[in-house]
Amino acid sequence: MKQNIYDNEVFFTNYKALREDPVNYNELLEQPEIKRMLPDLKGKRVLDIGCGMGDLARYCAEQGAASVTAIDPSSNMLQEAKNRNSHPAIEYVQTALEDAVMASESYDIAVSSLVMHYVAGYEAVIQSIHAALKEGAILLFSTEHPIGTARKEGDKWITDAEGNRLHFAVDNYHEQGRRETKWYVDGVIYYHRSIAALCNGLIRNGFSLEEVIEPIPDKAAIAKLPRIEHELRRPSFLILKARKAARP
Amino acid sequence: MKQNIYDNEVFFTNYKALREDPVNYNELLEQPEIKRMLPDLKGKRVLDIGCGMGDLARYCAEQGAASVTAIDPSSNMLQEAKNRNSHPAIEYVQTALEDAVMASESYDIAVSSLVMHYVAGYEAVIQSIHAALKEGAILLFSTEHPIGTARKEGDKWITDAEGNRLHFAVDNYHEQGRRETKWYVDGVIYYHRSIAALCNGLIRNGFSLEEVIEPIPDKAAIAKLPRIEHELRRPSFLILKARKAARP
Repeated sequence: MKQNIYDNEVFFTNYKALREDPVNYNELLEQPEIKRMLPDLKGKRVLDIGCGMGDLARYCAEQGAASVTAIDPSSNMLQEAKNRNSHPAIEYVQTALEDAVMASESYDIAVSSLVMHYVAGYEAVIQSIHAALKEGAILLFSTEHPIGTARKEGDKWITDAEGNRLHFAVDNYHEQGRRETKWYVDGVIYYHRSIAALCNGLIRNGFSLEEVIEPIPDKAAIAKLPRIEHELRRPSFLILKARKAARP
Repeated sequence: MKQNIYDNEVFFTNYKALREDPVNYNELLEQPEIKRMLPDLKGKRVLDIGCGMGDLARYCAEQGAASVTAIDPSSNMLQEAKNRNSHPAIEYVQTALEDAVMASESYDIAVSSLVMHYVAGYEAVIQSIHAALKEGAILLFSTEHPIGTARKEGDKWITDAEGNRLHFAVDNYHEQGRRETKWYVDGVIYYHRSIAALCNGLIRNGFSLEEVIEPIPDKAAIAKLPRIEHELRRPSFLILKARKAARP
């Protein structure tokens, strides 16, 4: 997350256009599950980690959250968030996730949408979040699925000469760590972690796992975006819901 | 598991030869992790689900378990188990997992090695195990990794013309259920389940997840069996350790 690709102008212009079209993978596949999995937000103090353009922060505020502290390292993102998604209950804060200084045992819910795969130090961030949550509080986050981040080289969907997708390619699964890809621009950095690492990083830092979700496109999503049907063929995202365990 | 391929003579003869060679995937990759993850066995009552030839049952007895109830549907397997792995603490019982009538809240530890992918009704079996365990008891099981069971057709390792493995193929991931394959004989049935289904089937039936392991071959294993190095490239097995939660 210390890389801040969202402040690259070429990247940001393209990314904004992608997210402005409501027919995209996040809106059709990931966000519906995140919203279903969130606990009742009324009167709750929410921490939104990597809030981006603030759509989810505003959703939380509109669902009755008492406060939403929405953090992001990108000034571009936060400017957009303030333009589009201002709300009296939301405070937008510019900070790298790794450096965020958060009040201790302050939040009822921490939510993070598709950010953890940009974080270099996963367990350190989980420990910070743990410290910032009240006992019994919920952490809900989504990430690119490890099956999608594993292979280092080449296109991950293997196609025939006509471009038909034959299968999805996995490789390098147990080589965890930094990956580099082209997404609008060269050199976008993300981090591959195994499913075991993601789960155990929660469990051994004081969380109990409550739900594990690999979102599946439904018929309505496929009607809006036919190629999302291929997401039935491989796991696209991983969403983990965990609770800060009571002290023994 | 109601299919009982292990009582097919062609299959069984081949399978026995495979397992008699200690240089195999189970012995090098899966069994070391299972043994590491088992809690202290001294004086404990152990249930071994799908015990096969009884090697793990005997290990548990030799580690000091007070009793090992070792169940399997295959008379071939149980005959081998009794021949090789008899022990005063072990009782071998022939029964289908789905039909096993187990005493209520009797066991401290349930262990099951590479059996769950043969079970048609995963959650029903988890519920039976839950009923058979004492409060606070451990369930530890390994299964073929969902990434390995997903694709319905074709070889899963994609190779070039010289037979070099290019990558591992994933497909049909969200189509859970019955799969058929050839393993020594045609028509070996197993069941594909998603990672989410395996984890949530534990959580929503009264278990808390304690550890998630995807075994990685170490240098010693690669020295003994060089082609096991490819198991660094994809997750081979999934091992889940869970605890029967205390009543609220």
